[in-house]
Amino acid sequence: MPAYSTNMRLKFPILALTLEIITIILFAVFVDYDDGKHGGHGAHNTTHHEEKKDPLTLYPMFQDVHVMIFIGFGFLMTFLKRYGFSSVGLNLLLAAFALQWGLIMQGLWHLDDGKIKVSIFKMINADFSTATVLISFGAVLGKTSPVQLLIMTILEITIFSINEHLVAEILEANDVGASMIIHAFGAYFGLAVARMLYRPALRNSHENDGSVYHSDLFAMIGTVFLWMFWPSFNSAIAESGTDQLMAVTNTYFSLAACVLSAYAVSSLVEHKGKLDMVHIQNATLAGGVAVGTCADMDIGPFGAMIIGFVAGIVSTLGFKFLTPILASNLGIQDTCGVHNLHGMPGILGGIAGIVAVALGKKNGSAAMQGAALASSLGFALVGGTITGLIMKLPFWGQPPDQNCFDDSIYWESHNVALATYRLLLVTHGKCGILSCITLNVTTWRHT
Amino acid sequence: MPAYSTNMRLKFPILALTLEIITIILFAVFVDYDDGKHGGHGAHNTTHHEEKKDPLTLYPMFQDVHVMIFIGFGFLMTFLKRYGFSSVGLNLLLAAFALQWGLIMQGLWHLDDGKIKVSIFKMINADFSTATVLISFGAVLGKTSPVQLLIMTILEITIFSINEHLVAEILEANDVGASMIIHAFGAYFGLAVARMLYRPALRNSHENDGSVYHSDLFAMIGTVFLWMFWPSFNSAIAESGTDQLMAVTNTYFSLAACVLSAYAVSSLVEHKGKLDMVHIQNATLAGGVAVGTCADMDIGPFGAMIIGFVAGIVSTLGFKFLTPILASNLGIQDTCGVHNLHGMPGILGGIAGIVAVALGKKNGSAAMQGAALASSLGFALVGGTITGLIMKLPFWGQPPDQNCFDDSIYWESHNVALATYRLLLVTHGKCGILSCITLNVTTWRHT
Amino acid sequence: MPAYSTNMRLKFPILALTLEIITIILFAVFVDYDDGKHGGHGAHNTTHHEEKKDPLTLYPMFQDVHVMIFIGFGFLMTFLKRYGFSSVGLNLLLAAFALQWGLIMQGLWHLDDGKIKVSIFKMINADFSTATVLISFGAVLGKTSPVQLLIMTILEITIFSINEHLVAEILEANDVGASMIIHAFGAYFGLAVARMLYRPALRNSHENDGSVYHSDLFAMIGTVFLWMFWPSFNSAIAESGTDQLMAVTNTYFSLAACVLSAYAVSSLVEHKGKLDMVHIQNATLAGGVAVGTCADMDIGPFGAMIIGFVAGIVSTLGFKFLTPILASNLGIQDTCGVHNLHGMPGILGGIAGIVAVALGKKNGSAAMQGAALASSLGFALVGGTITGLIMKLPFWGQPPDQNCFDDSIYWESHNVALATYRLLLVTHGKCGILSCITLNVTTWRHT
Repeated sequence: MPAYSTNMRLKFPILALTLEIITIILFAVFVDYDDGKHGGHGAHNTTHHEEKKDPLTLYPMFQDVHVMIFIGFGFLMTFLKRYGFSSVGLNLLLAAFALQWGLIMQGLWHLDDGKIKVSIFKMINADFSTATVLISFGAVLGKTSPVQLLIMTILEITIFSINEHLVAEILEANDVGASMIIHAFGAYFGLAVARMLYRPALRNSHENDGSVYHSDLFAMIGTVFLWMFWPSFNSAIAESGTDQLMAVTNTYFSLAACVLSAYAVSSLVEHKGKLDMVHIQNATLAGGVAVGTCADMDIGPFGAMIIGFVAGIVSTLGFKFLTPILASNLGIQDTCGVHNLHGMPGILGGIAGIVAVALGKKNGSAAMQGAALASSLGFALVGGTITGLIMKLPFWGQPPDQNCFDDSIYWESHNVALATYRLLLVTHGKCGILSCITLNVTTWRHT
Repeated sequence: MPAYSTNMRLKFPILALTLEIITIILFAVFVDYDDGKHGGHGAHNTTHHEEKKDPLTLYPMFQDVHVMIFIGFGFLMTFLKRYGFSSVGLNLLLAAFALQWGLIMQGLWHLDDGKIKVSIFKMINADFSTATVLISFGAVLGKTSPVQLLIMTILEITIFSINEHLVAEILEANDVGASMIIHAFGAYFGLAVARMLYRPALRNSHENDGSVYHSDLFAMIGTVFLWMFWPSFNSAIAESGTDQLMAVTNTYFSLAACVLSAYAVSSLVEHKGKLDMVHIQNATLAGGVAVGTCADMDIGPFGAMIIGFVAGIVSTLGFKFLTPILASNLGIQDTCGVHNLHGMPGILGGIAGIVAVALGKKNGSAAMQGAALASSLGFALVGGTITGLIMKLPFWGQPPDQNCFDDSIYWESHNVALATYRLLLVTHGKCGILSCITLNVTTWRHT
Repeated sequence: MPAYSTNMRLKFPILALTLEIITIILFAVFVDYDDGKHGGHGAHNTTHHEEKKDPLTLYPMFQDVHVMIFIGFGFLMTFLKRYGFSSVGLNLLLAAFALQWGLIMQGLWHLDDGKIKVSIFKMINADFSTATVLISFGAVLGKTSPVQLLIMTILEITIFSINEHLVAEILEANDVGASMIIHAFGAYFGLAVARMLYRPALRNSHENDGSVYHSDLFAMIGTVFLWMFWPSFNSAIAESGTDQLMAVTNTYFSLAACVLSAYAVSSLVEHKGKLDMVHIQNATLAGGVAVGTCADMDIGPFGAMIIGFVAGIVSTLGFKFLTPILASNLGIQDTCGVHNLHGMPGILGGIAGIVAVALGKKNGSAAMQGAALASSLGFALVGGTITGLIMKLPFWGQPPDQNCFDDSIYWESHNVALATYRLLLVTHGKCGILSCITLNVTTWRHT
């Protein structure tokens, strides 16, 4: 692996330091604290009016979203048996850069006296923008280098902010929980990248592309935190008052209904009616994605539950039947199955939004809702394809096929090997002293 | 195990889907969003008055309780070496259904224009109701099928809501932190069920009825989150203002004192004065349970500390000396020791409440407090016995004795094997010498 | 080990119970609930004015800090392969006692009608005081007994409260995020203790003084929770309004910038440009420490980012190059590298505060800021040395060198051994059947 490690040493630190220095300069020029005197953005006057009273009114909501981004997404991806360091570690790296870049990209559309004035509201949106990258990260998990991922982050956040501006300001579409502009966008962007980075050698399942008992438990930490705080994700930027309460309530019940249908279908389709951790870790969250666009609409708690119920079924069936087809027939190797958790439920959410607006559950135009969904998918697929082509360039230190899904290529490996395979030799003697030899597993395997 | 797995496939999905569809229909008929115009329930006028200003005032408290239910209870039970998927996974399933069912059962007593109007306050109570089921789940952990547990959920929530109404509305007793109506009720309900499901074959300790190093660390995630957020649990539905501050303060200090006494007694009773993880994971929380009824009473911080201090001692001694007796003499096999964490501390809390009210620390009647405790225990024991008899019916796919405490009977087992099969070979010699070789199981499987 | 275990049984329970009983008596005499009528403390009038409206205004901030103390610090230290029980378990024990002792020690300086009136604000400060002990705990992790650690807790909290009073009330220095009075103080106090407890036998790396794959993942739970909630730590006691928003914003961006520089430098200095988990788990947090003193000053978001960026570099370089030198040349064995995470970044924060005040970013005197930093370091080094000498006394049940970094000396060991050694025996045959026998290690040990 030296070639790749060397590449890392040359490319990664230079790229990371350069990006951060550029970002600091942009902040020095454009970013200032919120003085509470700026005008509202479209639908968010009330929220800002709120903030005028106490600028930290939204802070608890922000922290819930923050936990979803860094613990939720980070640990959800630790299910791979030997890729936990990268999952939670690169999740932290990408999100930390993405929130800075996202704040700039989103803020440039709404300059106020030539400045981006940072409020809790803007911090929530910065965290939101990182979600798109983390969803796409799930699609290419284990098959990309940190350098490639930083490049994806810059491009995806930039494209996301254009589509978000179009959807929110030009089309004036409703998407309070971001089913379309974050979940569908992030998923199809990632799938387009994955298609460009297709690895024929991984067609037959890779030895490391699976979980062990405790890695599945670490992943459940991510699942449960995402599940619990999703009502905050879908209501954080809603109008304060009744709309925000509706967004919380709808998401709470949609997720609850989703759990029942996901468990039922998992048992229904699995060998001997057993439950599959892959479904439980992911499909139980589809209800939060799918109810996003409608979250602050007057669809009734039972309406939200129907959306969640359907999302749980669609998502579980997707993991069972669609993911293998995408990989074998379309060359889309979706490591975490983001198509099932964010892609299809995101589209379902967009369609539910069109119907709900058509039924007058919220002011707006069904046509504009449809345009917003189309725009999000279009920007995602085109943007993801271009980004994938750039990431495909051979000098970003991507891992060779046999080292995919393996932390030891980008992380100091002294412990990585110890974790799964080790050989303990015990010398004789009363007090039984252990002397321990660790074989380099990779080498050993190939001999 | 095929017989049991087949049963799952037939029974579980049908039951889960049917229950969810019925629930959605009930929601369509009875449940609506809170419009902020409803009257208060008994003691909670102020809280509702609060909500009129901003319906999300209680939201941060709600999220703390939410974390206790899904992370706290879920991970606390992952201590078993081979039952982690079921502990956190079935915890999610049961709580997700229980909160929907609980909202209906509790709401039917307080219809408002024929509707249950969902507020954050009602969502907190829905989460509370799930706690009773999760406590009982701990008593039968590892010895029941998902089908049995769903049946227990429906019955326990229904019986709970009757007792809660009696205690809060008819007897008008104080129980802000629910020592009696949740902790004592849930514990004795579960113990009655466990008695009905007694398995003689498990009298001699089962190979899987224990922990491994990392499963104990996963359990500590649950312990610490429960410990941290307990002040929210005990104050969430208190009168806003001084009462709520007292509830937070009393719980904070009761838990702190409880930690010291639990650690001290654990060391005092253990082999060579060592600490036992079972005590640390559970008895450190007894202070939160025991101070529940008195939480919003003017007992003084030192009063709360005395309650917590005693609870830590009682709980630790219970784990050490009482649990084995209950199992061997009374045929009550209490997997998680809920009698020590929720049962005895719950009764202690009820008694403390009687004394505090008698001393005038809060308006109320000591007699009514006593009646509330008696009612909670009565409903729990009778309800649990009946529920246990129903769960005992032979066709719910319960696990055979040798498969108890084992995820692989209800979960896809491809990883479970990797995680657990092992053999310790001990050669001769005073201190014993270990020789150990680990083979790559995956590779081997394909040969 | 019997000698040590026996010591535990005699000393630990008696000490723990005595301390708690004394504390309860002190609470009975001095502590009461906050009635909202007390005067402000120095800079905190506004905060208190806030609280008069609703005494729970600061509660969500308090809970974030609470999570940092019990989950953050507790799990951050679980990186050691066989010391996880002690890390998270003793963290809970020490913090639970420290918050009670801290409330008394801090409160005695501000008696109100002869009483310490507990508000959420005082609970936040009580939690803060525990942080000093937990930082020092990191320096001596694995080399001290619970008895020694309880003694350190009493002395360190007492000395901390004197220095805090001097810095905040006498010098009237700014240190809203406590870079000086908590981070620098706790680190150098702990390093002075570590120097006194120097163990020559540990000069050559100890077999247990390292991590395994999953212990590093547990540690990341601590890292990420600390990282996410640090904005609450630095803003919890800031003036509500713009100052508090600045504290949140500055910390948010400082931490984000810190992540990029920590990752970059880790890759730059590591073997083949790989990332090292030790750096990622710790250096990514240095930005939160370093921006603490300046958090509520008008330094601009980019100013905060520069501080975080530099802190990430300094901290990572410290782990790589300075820690080994401290151990080999100065006899300071810093288990967790608190010098790199809290020590140097804390001093950096103090210096940044001097400069910021000199530049007029906040009212105050640069000289007084400098005096505050000097005072914090002085009290830490002198107090830590004296405390270390007391802890060095031979009868506190300290572990022998060969049992350092090993839970089994203070915790029931039935699982500890099982966790590390295993052997897979594979019988012949295509489909390969596993045969599995588990021996009771404890039993075996006694044979």
